[in-house]
Amino acid sequence: MFKAVINAETLRDAIEAVSSLVDEVKFSITENGIELKAVDPANVAMVSLKLDAAAFELFKSTPGEIGVDLVRLSDLLSMADRGEKVLLELDEEQHKLKIGVGSLSYTLSLIDPSAIRKEPRIPELDLPAHVTLSGSELRRAVKASEKVSDHVILGVQDDQFFMEAKGDIDSLKLRIPSNELLGLKPGEARSLFSLDYLSDMSKSIGKASQVTLELGVDYPLRIGFQVGPVEVNYLLAPRIEQE
Amino acid sequence: MFKAVINAETLRDAIEAVSSLVDEVKFSITENGIELKAVDPANVAMVSLKLDAAAFELFKSTPGEIGVDLVRLSDLLSMADRGEKVLLELDEEQHKLKIGVGSLSYTLSLIDPSAIRKEPRIPELDLPAHVTLSGSELRRAVKASEKVSDHVILGVQDDQFFMEAKGDIDSLKLRIPSNELLGLKPGEARSLFSLDYLSDMSKSIGKASQVTLELGVDYPLRIGFQVGPVEVNYLLAPRIEQE
Amino acid sequence: MFKAVINAETLRDAIEAVSSLVDEVKFSITENGIELKAVDPANVAMVSLKLDAAAFELFKSTPGEIGVDLVRLSDLLSMADRGEKVLLELDEEQHKLKIGVGSLSYTLSLIDPSAIRKEPRIPELDLPAHVTLSGSELRRAVKASEKVSDHVILGVQDDQFFMEAKGDIDSLKLRIPSNELLGLKPGEARSLFSLDYLSDMSKSIGKASQVTLELGVDYPLRIGFQVGPVEVNYLLAPRIEQE
Repeated sequence: MFKAVINAETLRDAIEAVSSLVDEVKFSITENGIELKAVDPANVAMVSLKLDAAAFELFKSTPGEIGVDLVRLSDLLSMADRGEKVLLELDEEQHKLKIGVGSLSYTLSLIDPSAIRKEPRIPELDLPAHVTLSGSELRRAVKASEKVSDHVILGVQDDQFFMEAKGDIDSLKLRIPSNELLGLKPGEARSLFSLDYLSDMSKSIGKASQVTLELGVDYPLRIGFQVGPVEVNYLLAPRIEQE
Repeated sequence: MFKAVINAETLRDAIEAVSSLVDEVKFSITENGIELKAVDPANVAMVSLKLDAAAFELFKSTPGEIGVDLVRLSDLLSMADRGEKVLLELDEEQHKLKIGVGSLSYTLSLIDPSAIRKEPRIPELDLPAHVTLSGSELRRAVKASEKVSDHVILGVQDDQFFMEAKGDIDSLKLRIPSNELLGLKPGEARSLFSLDYLSDMSKSIGKASQVTLELGVDYPLRIGFQVGPVEVNYLLAPRIEQE
Repeated sequence: MFKAVINAETLRDAIEAVSSLVDEVKFSITENGIELKAVDPANVAMVSLKLDAAAFELFKSTPGEIGVDLVRLSDLLSMADRGEKVLLELDEEQHKLKIGVGSLSYTLSLIDPSAIRKEPRIPELDLPAHVTLSGSELRRAVKASEKVSDHVILGVQDDQFFMEAKGDIDSLKLRIPSNELLGLKPGEARSLFSLDYLSDMSKSIGKASQVTLELGVDYPLRIGFQVGPVEVNYLLAPRIEQE
C-alpha cells in the first residue's frame, strides 16, 4: 500500500537528480519515506537519494518496492504547475501508479523491480579533504571547464579548493581560498573526473544552497547536497590522469 | 474598396485561429466586418471566424472577397509590436494588400479567390451535451493527453465532463464535475478525436477565458470561443473508436 | 605589457560588433586604448572599432599587437555575469591572454598576428547624404526587409530617408520624414545592399541609441554608432541594382 501527496516541484527535483544518471530505477518505500540507490550503465557514477516522509503532505505506506521509468514519469509531471500538489497512489494488483494532478489523473505502468539493475552497494570511503561551497558556484565552474576540456581536476592545496581543466589550446583554473568557501577540511586531494558526468549532475547541484565535496588523491568524489527536502549523494569514479 | 485599422494583436489572434488548419483562405468583406469559412485539406476540421467592424479602429468597405496566403501575412505581422496599429488597404487594380506598421509599408500580393478551395457548408448540428470551461484548462488537458496517446475521448457522463486518452502503456483520465465547470448541459456524449487537430486548435483556444464544447455520441465536436473581439468556431469530425 | 580590467558587457559588445564580420582579428594596443580594423573574407564589409582607455577600470599597456580568435574569446566571456568585471593580462612569453572572471581564470592561446589577414585601408569617402536614427528602428527595418527579399535599397529623397525591398511576390517600403529622424543632411543617395551583411551588423546596431548612415548614389554605406563606450564604424560595399 502506498498513497502520498507531495509538492510537484519537490518530486521533479528528486527525479531530476536521478534521471541524469539512469532511466529506470527501483524506489524503496518504507514507513519513513522513499529511498533509492542506482548506478549508471557505465559504472562510473552512483546516486543515492532520500525523501523523508515529512517532505510529503500525506504519506501512508507499507514497505515495498516499485520499478519506475523516470523518463515517462518526468514527462507526465511536466504538466503540473509550480505550486501544485501531486497525488501518488499505488495499484498493487495492476502494477500501476496513479498520478493525480488537479483534475487530471494519469495511470503509469510500473516496471517489474526484478527487471531493473540490482542496487549498488555504495562503498564507505573516508576521504581526507572536504570542501563546502554554493551549488551555483560549483555549477558555474563545471560549465566554465566544459568550455576548454572534457575532463577536470578537482583538488585541495594548502587552504585552497582548486579546479583545473586543460584543453588542446586553452586552459582554465579556479582557485577559491578557504575564507571564500562555506567550509574546508584540508587534506591531500587531487583527482581527475569526466566533465560529462559532472555536467549532468550539476543541473541538480546548481539548485542547492550548499554542496559538500569529499576528495582524495586519485579517489572517487563524493558530492552531497539537499534540494529542498530531497537529500542527494553522488559518488563519481576518478579517471586516470595522463601527464 | 477596403481600408481598415486594427490592433496588431487582434489581427494576429484571428490569423492564428485559422492558420492552424489552412494556409490559404478567402476573406469575405462586408459592411459589418470580415468573415471566413474554411476546411482543412483532409476534410477533418472546419473553422469559421467573424471579426466585427466594431473590432476595428477604422473600417471602410464595399462588399468583396480577397484571397490571402496566411503564412506570409502572419510572417509580415510578426514585425508589429504588441500594442501597435496595423493599417490594411486594398489595391483592387493590382490585386495587392497594403499593410502599414509604423513607418513600414508592406505590399502583399493577393491570391485569386477562385484559386482557393471553395468555402465549406458548415452543417447545422443539434448536439445534445454542452460544456463550458476555461480555454487554458482545455488546452492543458489536450497537452496532457498528448503525453500518452494520439487520440482522446471527450464526453459527458452524469454531471461530469470527461476526457480519456489510452496509450500502449500509460493512460490519462480527466473528470470535471459540473460545479467546477463554467457551464454544463448534460446529455449523452462520447466521441473519439484526433489529438493532432485538437493540439493545433488549442493554441488559440488557450487564449479564451471561456470555451464551449458541444458534443454527441460519435458525432462531430463543435468548439466555440472568443479571443478578444475575434469569434471563432471549430467543427471537428470524430474518429471511429476501436475497442 | 598589457593589463586591463573592463566590464564584461562592454567587452562582449565590442567583440559582437566585430565577430559578425570576421572570426580572427588583430587588436592594436596603444597607450590610449584598443583599436582594430578588419575586412570580411568576401571583401564586402569593413569594420573599425575603438575602445578608449577611459572605458576600462584599469588600463596599463605598452604599444603592441595581439591576434585573437573571437569565437573562442566570446565563448569564454559568456561565463561572465552581466555586471561582472573581466581581468585581461597578456603573457608575452607564452603568447597567451589570461582572462579572469571572478575566481575563474582562463588562459587563451593567442594567434600569431602575422598569420591574420592584413588590416584594410579604410577609404576616406565624402558621402553626400547623412541620416541619423535610433539603432532599434534601423534594426527593425532590416528585419522587415528580410521578410521579402535578400537585398534592400537605402536612400534619401527630398526630406525623407527611405528603404525599399522587392521580393518576387511581396515588397516593403519604409519612409521616415526628417521631422521623425534624429538628424538628416539631405543629398542625392540611393544604393543597393545585401541584407545578409546588414542583418549581421544590426544585432550590434540595435543596441545603439543612435546610428548615423552616410550614403551616396551606388556608393558604399558608412554606418557609425556607439554601444556604451565602444565606437564602431562599418563600411558596406553596394551591389549593382538590376532593373
